[in-house]
Amino acid sequence: MDYTKFQKISKMTLGEEKADLVIKNGKVLDVFTNEIHKADIAVCDGIIAGIGTYYEGKTEIDVNGHYVLPGFIDAHLHLESTMVTPNELVSMAASAGTTTFIVDPHEAANVSGASGIDYILDQTEASPANVYVMMPSCVPATSFDDNGCDFTAAKMKPYLKNERILGLGEVMNDPGVVYGDKKLHEKLELFAGRPIDGHAPFLPGSELSAYALAGITTDHECTTYEYAMEEVRRGIHVHIREGSAAHNLEAIVKGIVKNNTPTSEFSFCTDDKHIEDILRDGHISYNIKKSIKLGLNPIDAIKMATINTARCYGLKHLGALSPGYQADMVIVDRLDKFKVLSVYHKGKLIDSSSKPQIKPCPDELKETVHLAPVSEEAFVLPIKNKQAHIIELDSSQITTRHVIKAIGNTDNYQPVNGLNKVAAVERHKGTGKIGVGICSHYGIKNGAVASSVSHDSHNIIVVGDNDRDMAIAVNEIIKAQGGYTVVSKGKVFDTLPLPVMGLMSDAGYEEVNKKLKRMIKKAHNMGVLDDVEPFITLSFMALPVIPEIRIIPRGLMNTSKFELIKQ
Amino acid sequence: MDYTKFQKISKMTLGEEKADLVIKNGKVLDVFTNEIHKADIAVCDGIIAGIGTYYEGKTEIDVNGHYVLPGFIDAHLHLESTMVTPNELVSMAASAGTTTFIVDPHEAANVSGASGIDYILDQTEASPANVYVMMPSCVPATSFDDNGCDFTAAKMKPYLKNERILGLGEVMNDPGVVYGDKKLHEKLELFAGRPIDGHAPFLPGSELSAYALAGITTDHECTTYEYAMEEVRRGIHVHIREGSAAHNLEAIVKGIVKNNTPTSEFSFCTDDKHIEDILRDGHISYNIKKSIKLGLNPIDAIKMATINTARCYGLKHLGALSPGYQADMVIVDRLDKFKVLSVYHKGKLIDSSSKPQIKPCPDELKETVHLAPVSEEAFVLPIKNKQAHIIELDSSQITTRHVIKAIGNTDNYQPVNGLNKVAAVERHKGTGKIGVGICSHYGIKNGAVASSVSHDSHNIIVVGDNDRDMAIAVNEIIKAQGGYTVVSKGKVFDTLPLPVMGLMSDAGYEEVNKKLKRMIKKAHNMGVLDDVEPFITLSFMALPVIPEIRIIPRGLMNTSKFELIKQ
Repeated sequence: MDYTKFQKISKMTLGEEKADLVIKNGKVLDVFTNEIHKADIAVCDGIIAGIGTYYEGKTEIDVNGHYVLPGFIDAHLHLESTMVTPNELVSMAASAGTTTFIVDPHEAANVSGASGIDYILDQTEASPANVYVMMPSCVPATSFDDNGCDFTAAKMKPYLKNERILGLGEVMNDPGVVYGDKKLHEKLELFAGRPIDGHAPFLPGSELSAYALAGITTDHECTTYEYAMEEVRRGIHVHIREGSAAHNLEAIVKGIVKNNTPTSEFSFCTDDKHIEDILRDGHISYNIKKSIKLGLNPIDAIKMATINTARCYGLKHLGALSPGYQADMVIVDRLDKFKVLSVYHKGKLIDSSSKPQIKPCPDELKETVHLAPVSEEAFVLPIKNKQAHIIELDSSQITTRHVIKAIGNTDNYQPVNGLNKVAAVERHKGTGKIGVGICSHYGIKNGAVASSVSHDSHNIIVVGDNDRDMAIAVNEIIKAQGGYTVVSKGKVFDTLPLPVMGLMSDAGYEEVNKKLKRMIKKAHNMGVLDDVEPFITLSFMALPVIPEIRIIPRGLMNTSKFELIKQ
Repeated sequence: MDYTKFQKISKMTLGEEKADLVIKNGKVLDVFTNEIHKADIAVCDGIIAGIGTYYEGKTEIDVNGHYVLPGFIDAHLHLESTMVTPNELVSMAASAGTTTFIVDPHEAANVSGASGIDYILDQTEASPANVYVMMPSCVPATSFDDNGCDFTAAKMKPYLKNERILGLGEVMNDPGVVYGDKKLHEKLELFAGRPIDGHAPFLPGSELSAYALAGITTDHECTTYEYAMEEVRRGIHVHIREGSAAHNLEAIVKGIVKNNTPTSEFSFCTDDKHIEDILRDGHISYNIKKSIKLGLNPIDAIKMATINTARCYGLKHLGALSPGYQADMVIVDRLDKFKVLSVYHKGKLIDSSSKPQIKPCPDELKETVHLAPVSEEAFVLPIKNKQAHIIELDSSQITTRHVIKAIGNTDNYQPVNGLNKVAAVERHKGTGKIGVGICSHYGIKNGAVASSVSHDSHNIIVVGDNDRDMAIAVNEIIKAQGGYTVVSKGKVFDTLPLPVMGLMSDAGYEEVNKKLKRMIKKAHNMGVLDDVEPFITLSFMALPVIPEIRIIPRGLMNTSKFELIKQ
């Protein structure tokens, strides 16, 4: 600690001066000893000066015997996925007790490279929480991707000294890690000795060992207790994920409870959690409470959201309530089914209604849809071999089925029987690449739906039952410079602009949500199946790393065999 | 991991090539899950390539179902204290299972500054163990000390990039930490964010909080469970010490067992352990076994000697048996009252008889006694105020009593009634400073004992019952350029040369021990009390940080009031 700062704070530690703030009459959780102390917490300059029963403060807040916990940590999430600006999501989750976010700006980097990462850093600098960044490791995600930036090791170097950059993010290219892809290993070497997040939904034993050998330190993709244990045995810290889409907590925590497994190698993450879910259930607080409900010891559960994660990421000033630690505190009414009563970040009460001073978004990040308007001819799909390759959607998961159907040859396929055309339109470099295919189990009639949010490269993805409406939808996205749109019978019904990299709105959550609900309803009224969320489903249709078949700007892709399909 | 290395090792991990070494049929302790796996360990280039049941090796060693544990770590020790050369001690302790040593070359730095530290680094570079160094923080130990070097923060800077330097060693100047001594805090700032070892035998609550606030991360001076817990609550990792002199383990471990305290914040250290004790009892293995005997869970005890310590010091490649970890392994017959069967460092069997290539000791480190021969007049002690201040020794501890005795005035006090004269002779810079006083409960008659080992400044300390023999003894130490000597009736009985900084022999342990035993016997025959170890007792008589009274080159010192005594 800086000498001047020490001299100031230590006077309060020693009781020679009144502290800035004293939290009085708390039951303070000690994550080092698993004890609960009836004590007061003295805070100075956002740092815990001391814990005891003898402190006086310029401000004193009586918490009436409620529990004081260290601020919760989300070990892995993406801020771009909720469509609101980073600070809005962070502020809302912070009010629910999450005071530290370890984010991977993978989407932003795929669109805008370093500028996208800088945006995430800038926008969260004044947030009422600690936002750390893991350098996106797989930009582009695959060699088939047409994205906005090749984010090489050389481009990462300037970030190494940034204190908010902790390590390397979510290394999804598992074969590249295991079998020694040189460019990927350049990135691993660059971050050697630092945290390196993995992404290995399943690797057989010896490959998982090689994955660990390469320096992967965490994974958040485990869906079973057994596989989580295979990772932990190899020294990989497991983030138990419970977000809006993925629900892995029950399976893993049940195993932990049943086997009395030590919990030091586990943390919690959300990966992606939407604002309505945060408002309803909480954020990392939900992971804690759900674990306790499943039988986990409350203190172990809280440690999985605090000290375990802080240590996993080398955050020596976070995760505990002790002298010198940052005064990030969550006040709760009880230890099991708790309610978050108030949250402090650096000793300041978090007020969800306050608006921190945030740098404006640079213009270049609002102009990321780089292509000229398309004509309906762009969506012509000739059938030559009397067969059609169809992307069959499954509303319950993001995998698809590759269905081959006998069909008559034609110069331009016209969707019938509830089938749709789907197209991926390159939008970063104006290459003119457009891939067109057929999908089933979506269901739109007399119109089209389009989006600039489309993992991982975030090109424009459009689905419709006629070429004209598809062209109108894509042109609307170009005009809005990103967003969601619904086109019905030749007219734009409505558009939700997502001008920030084509990923995020700069309007507030309420406005986004209101418009979104109206557009989803319209899409369903136009025939989109009830169990299909029209935009989220669309956003995964161009993702080349998930089986079995996808549409990308280069054409239809067999993602199980990792090769383009000749139509 | 370096790419070329990864490519080589991963082939063995994946089973594509035979490993260098496979340890077959082990019961492998997994410190992450607390499981014991029946498995084989594949090693390549000193690194664990994989753990499984399918590995083949160029060399295969069957351990017949014995347990394989990670190599043990001594969290804190001084290599200079055993008088043998650093590699000899390290090799011997390594054979007992300690494969990592976190050493504080405090004595070497007090004599020779940076050269002393370099010596420790050089001498242990080829040792069959990992030797890491903490930068000595308190050189000199106090403002009253006349030592060989003022080891400032500026002098530490060049060491910051050395991978074997982990942090700042044993900060003994507690008031300096707590009340903000600027020069000391310069050192703390220099090592901010790194491990900083404390030394706080007792600090009241708020001072201990300030100690933690200043960035102290460990302490090894706890003697009670209650005080250890006070430290752990403040985020200070506690090293439970069990060495030749200090025996703190029973008290602390009993408390841990009784209270079911989590053990993650505890490690083991020896601080100082003599070779005969290592040969008889083992090294850190003894701490583990004693803890288990006291009721600690064996796996928790082993973790206190492995992963806990590795994490405390940020040694990410040590403390566990998992892919990518260094292949430091201890094979034992059982988990409780175990016998160490064999030890591997970087995948190589440790052979205690092998002699690694070690750099010769630089000449300058063998010429550290810088003063001209003294005459017997140097020990003249006039009594002016009809009273004598007497250092009363207590054979059971290193504290002394300050006794004031009425006595007639004289130009030169002559010891009677079993009293002795004791003197501290500055030896580093030839300043000519000599402090002379009186001590009781030592007992030498018709002679003198002298030593160049005298904490913390390691000046020459001499005790005797007549000035002539004292002068002969000091001159013998000057001639030998350091060592222990016994002088009887005007003649040197024998001298154990300790030419390396006046602290260590360059002869082997057996020779040192043989000579030492003979000299100790002689001293006792000359009247030194049975329960007084003549040289060790002498070595603490100039230590100004222990109550109540000491002799230093500047004169007699009241160490309780921290002031010189006017005689």
